[in-house]
Amino acid sequence: MAAKSVALLAVKGAIRAIYKVRGLMREGRETEMGIKVLNCMFRRTIKRFLMTSGSGPTIKPNRALTENLSKDVWSLTNEAAATAANNSKNKGRELINLGQGFFSYSPPHFAISEVQKALEDPMVNQYAPTKGRVSLINSLIQLYSPFYKTQLQPNNVQVTTGANEGILSCLVGLVNPGDEVIVFEPFFDQYISNIRIPGGIVKYVPLHPPKDLEKRVTFGTEWTVDYDELRAAITPKTKALILNSPHNPIGKVFTRNELLQIGQICVENNVFIISDEVYENLYFTNEFTRVATLTPEIGQITLTIGSAGKTFAATGWRIGWIVSLNPDLLKYASMAHTRICFSSPSPFQEACANSLILATEKDYFETMRQEYIRKFEIFTSVFDELRLPYTKPEGTYFVLVDFSKVKIPADYPFPEELKEKAKDFRISYWLINELGVVAIPPTEFYIKEHEKAAENLLRFAVCKSDDYLQKAVERLRLLKDHLD
Amino acid sequence: MAAKSVALLAVKGAIRAIYKVRGLMREGRETEMGIKVLNCMFRRTIKRFLMTSGSGPTIKPNRALTENLSKDVWSLTNEAAATAANNSKNKGRELINLGQGFFSYSPPHFAISEVQKALEDPMVNQYAPTKGRVSLINSLIQLYSPFYKTQLQPNNVQVTTGANEGILSCLVGLVNPGDEVIVFEPFFDQYISNIRIPGGIVKYVPLHPPKDLEKRVTFGTEWTVDYDELRAAITPKTKALILNSPHNPIGKVFTRNELLQIGQICVENNVFIISDEVYENLYFTNEFTRVATLTPEIGQITLTIGSAGKTFAATGWRIGWIVSLNPDLLKYASMAHTRICFSSPSPFQEACANSLILATEKDYFETMRQEYIRKFEIFTSVFDELRLPYTKPEGTYFVLVDFSKVKIPADYPFPEELKEKAKDFRISYWLINELGVVAIPPTEFYIKEHEKAAENLLRFAVCKSDDYLQKAVERLRLLKDHLD
Repeated sequence: MAAKSVALLAVKGAIRAIYKVRGLMREGRETEMGIKVLNCMFRRTIKRFLMTSGSGPTIKPNRALTENLSKDVWSLTNEAAATAANNSKNKGRELINLGQGFFSYSPPHFAISEVQKALEDPMVNQYAPTKGRVSLINSLIQLYSPFYKTQLQPNNVQVTTGANEGILSCLVGLVNPGDEVIVFEPFFDQYISNIRIPGGIVKYVPLHPPKDLEKRVTFGTEWTVDYDELRAAITPKTKALILNSPHNPIGKVFTRNELLQIGQICVENNVFIISDEVYENLYFTNEFTRVATLTPEIGQITLTIGSAGKTFAATGWRIGWIVSLNPDLLKYASMAHTRICFSSPSPFQEACANSLILATEKDYFETMRQEYIRKFEIFTSVFDELRLPYTKPEGTYFVLVDFSKVKIPADYPFPEELKEKAKDFRISYWLINELGVVAIPPTEFYIKEHEKAAENLLRFAVCKSDDYLQKAVERLRLLKDHLD
Repeated sequence: MAAKSVALLAVKGAIRAIYKVRGLMREGRETEMGIKVLNCMFRRTIKRFLMTSGSGPTIKPNRALTENLSKDVWSLTNEAAATAANNSKNKGRELINLGQGFFSYSPPHFAISEVQKALEDPMVNQYAPTKGRVSLINSLIQLYSPFYKTQLQPNNVQVTTGANEGILSCLVGLVNPGDEVIVFEPFFDQYISNIRIPGGIVKYVPLHPPKDLEKRVTFGTEWTVDYDELRAAITPKTKALILNSPHNPIGKVFTRNELLQIGQICVENNVFIISDEVYENLYFTNEFTRVATLTPEIGQITLTIGSAGKTFAATGWRIGWIVSLNPDLLKYASMAHTRICFSSPSPFQEACANSLILATEKDYFETMRQEYIRKFEIFTSVFDELRLPYTKPEGTYFVLVDFSKVKIPADYPFPEELKEKAKDFRISYWLINELGVVAIPPTEFYIKEHEKAAENLLRFAVCKSDDYLQKAVERLRLLKDHLD
C-alpha cells in the first residue's frame, strides 16, 4: 500500500477516535474511558500501518528457537563448501565432504528388500499405531531383553520418528516451563532447542579435555566428568540430564564407573536420565555399558534412545525408538510423540522390524564394528604421518583432530560472518578452500563462554566408503606444506 | 527397597540433620539457617523415600499434555472395538471399522513403484535437506504456482513429516508462552496439544450448526461463523488462527466469502492464519477456495498445510508440506521443523516428488474426487433409506450422521468410563456392540461446555473400498429395528 493511503488511513483513524471520545464525553462518561478508547484506536491504526506499509506483517517468532540466533554450523559449512567447490584451488578436483554424519553408501541389501516387501501390503502404507508397529516393538523386545537382563514388554518400548524426535518426545513429555535440564558440554546442538521448546532451561556441565590435547594422541576416557560440578549444577528445578554414549563429537564411550556415578547422583536427586545411545553398535572398546542396566533404581529413571538410521546406514528413514524399564515414565514420552508426529513412517518400521532380526542372524553389527575399526585406521593414518594429534575414537563415526600445528595465515580472506566465530570456524573455512576437505568446527557444540576448549579442533566423519576415505587421506597429506 | 531400610534411611537422615543444625548453632549462626538446613535434609529424605519405596520416581509430566487428561477418543474406540469383536452379537461377523480415517486400500501403483525406485539410490536413503528434497520442492512449486497465480520459489515451500508435524512446526515457530491461538469448534483434537506444546493458550470460536440438524439432511454451508464472535475472541495476545477447509469432521468447504471475511479480520488484527488444507483434493462443491490466494495481505499472513498421506492414500508415509507466499513467515516454521524432526523421510519425499507430477498427468485427483462422490452415494444411501439425517459432505471423507431417532436403551451396560462422557460416546459404544460398526463420537472435537451441540452425532469415514462400504450399508440397515 502506498505511503499516501497509509497516511490517509492514520488521519481517518484519528478523526474517528476524536469523534468517538467526544461522543463519550457528551454521554457524561469519564475521560478515563475516553483515553482508553483513544489508545485502543491508536494501537489499531499503528498495527494497520505496520501491516500495510509494505514491510509485511509484524512477526514475533518463538524466542525458544530464535534467541541468540546465529547461522547454524550445518548451513555455514554447506554454504562455504558450495562456494569453495569452484575456487581456483578446487577446480578440477573433487570436494571431499567429511562434515555432516550421513553415510556415503546404501543401507544393507536385506534392509532395502524388506522395505520393498513392506510396501506391497496395503495396510503397511497406512498410519502405524502411535506406539509403533507390533512387529517392530517385538523385534526391539527381542533385541534389547538380553541387554536389560529381563523380558521386556511392549509397554517398555516406543517407536519414534528418528532419534531426534525421540529425545524431543522425552523432553516434551516431562519438562514444564522453568524446569532445568543438564547437558554435558560439548553437546549435540539439537538438544538445546529440544529442551527449550517445552520451556526448559539448559544447564551445562563440562566434559574436561585432557590437558595436553594439542601434543599427543589422546583417548575418550581422558575427557572427564567432575562429579562435584555435576552435583552443583543440580537444583530443585532439575528435571532431567541428557547423556550421550558413545559421545558425539568426542567419540568417548562412558565407562561403567562413570555411568554408575552419574546415575547414582541422578537417582539421589530424582533427575531423569535421557540416554542418547544412537551409536550403540559403534563402540571399539571392550564393552559398551547401557546406563539403564546398572541398578534397578537407575533403570526406573532412564529413557534410552536408539536409532535405525545409525544402525542401518539409513538416516533418511526416520525411525528411532525409546526403551525404558519404567512404563510409567515412558508413557509421557509416548503421549508427546503422539502429539508431535502422531505416528512414524510405517513401511520403514516394518522393514526395520525384520532387518533387526536378520542383522542378528547375519552378525551384521559385529561386521559393521570391524569395518569401522578399519575405516578409522585408514583415515587416522594421515594424522599419524603428519603428527597431528587427535582423540582416538572409542565409539561413533567421528574423530576430533587438533589443528594447532597447522599454519593458517592471519590475513586469509575470511568472510565477515566468521570473524565473530571461534577459531575453528576459520580453520574449517581455510581447509575447505585450500584443500577442498569439509569438516565441522566443534565449538558449535559449546556455549560461547567455553568455546576456547575446542577452538583448534575439527570433527571429521568417517561414515564413508573406504575408497572415499583413501581419497581424503591423499588430500589431507597436502597439509604437510602448512605445518609449523 | 524394603520398608525397614527406608525407615532406617529416614532416621539416619534425621540424626544427620540434628547434628548439622547443632553444629551451626555452636558456630553462632542463626537458627533460620538451621531451619533451612533441616528443611533441605527433610526434603531429600522424603525424595529418597519416594524414590526407593517401590513406588518409583516422582514424575511430574508436562502439564501442556496432561492437564484435563482423559483417555483419547482413538484409544477408547479401539479398545471398545477390540472387546466388542468377540461379543455374542458380533461372533461370526466381520467388524466394520469406519472410525479412524485410514485408507483400507493401497496407494496408487505409480506411487509405490516410485518409492521402490527411490530406494535404489544410496543417497536417497540418507538425510534429506531439512527444507525438503529439491525434487519434491520443485514438484510442489509446479503443483501450487497455478493456484497461487504466481511463480512460487523454493523459499515458499517447506516439506514436513506429515501435516500434523507441519502444523506443530508453524505453532512452535511462532507461538511464545501466553500467546493465544483461535480454533473453530469442532476442531481436530491434535490442534489443541500442538498449540499448548510451545505454551500457547487455545481460544474457541464455534461453527454454529443448522438449527434443525436432527430433522433433515443438511449441508456444510449451513454451519456458520459469527464474525462478531470471532472479532470478540481476538485480544492483543492473539497470535494465530487455525482454519480447516475442507473441514474434519463436518465436511464443510468454507466459501470464498467466509474465507475473505475471516482473512480480513486476521489481517486487521495481525493474526496469522494456519490453513489446514489436507483434504484439498477431496471437495465436491463447484470450487475449492484457498484462503492464502484471496488478497495479497491475506497471503502474507497465511501458512497453508498439505498432506501426501491424504493425497496418495499413504497416511503411513508421513510426508506433508507448508506453502506460504511469505518466506519471512515460513522461515520460522522451517526452523521449528529442523528442531522437531530434523528432516523428513527421504525415499518417500522422492517418490512423492515424482508421483505429484504423474498424478497431474494421469488426472488422478479428479478421478479420486469422482470415486469419493460414488463412495458417499453408496454409503449415505442407507441413511436416506432409514430417514436418518446427516450433513451432506462437501469435502473430506467423513460424514456426520444424527442418531437422535435411534432408540438406545438407557439401561444398556455401558462401561464406567463412558458415564462421564457425552451421549455420543455411548451411542458409539452401543453401535460397536450391537451392530459391529465402528464410528467416532464427535464431541471429542468440542470442549466440555459445548459438547451438547454434537451429542447425537457420529462420524463415519468412507476412505474404504466400495465393497467394504456395501458391507457397511448392509450392516447399518439393521438399525431399522431400533428406530423410534
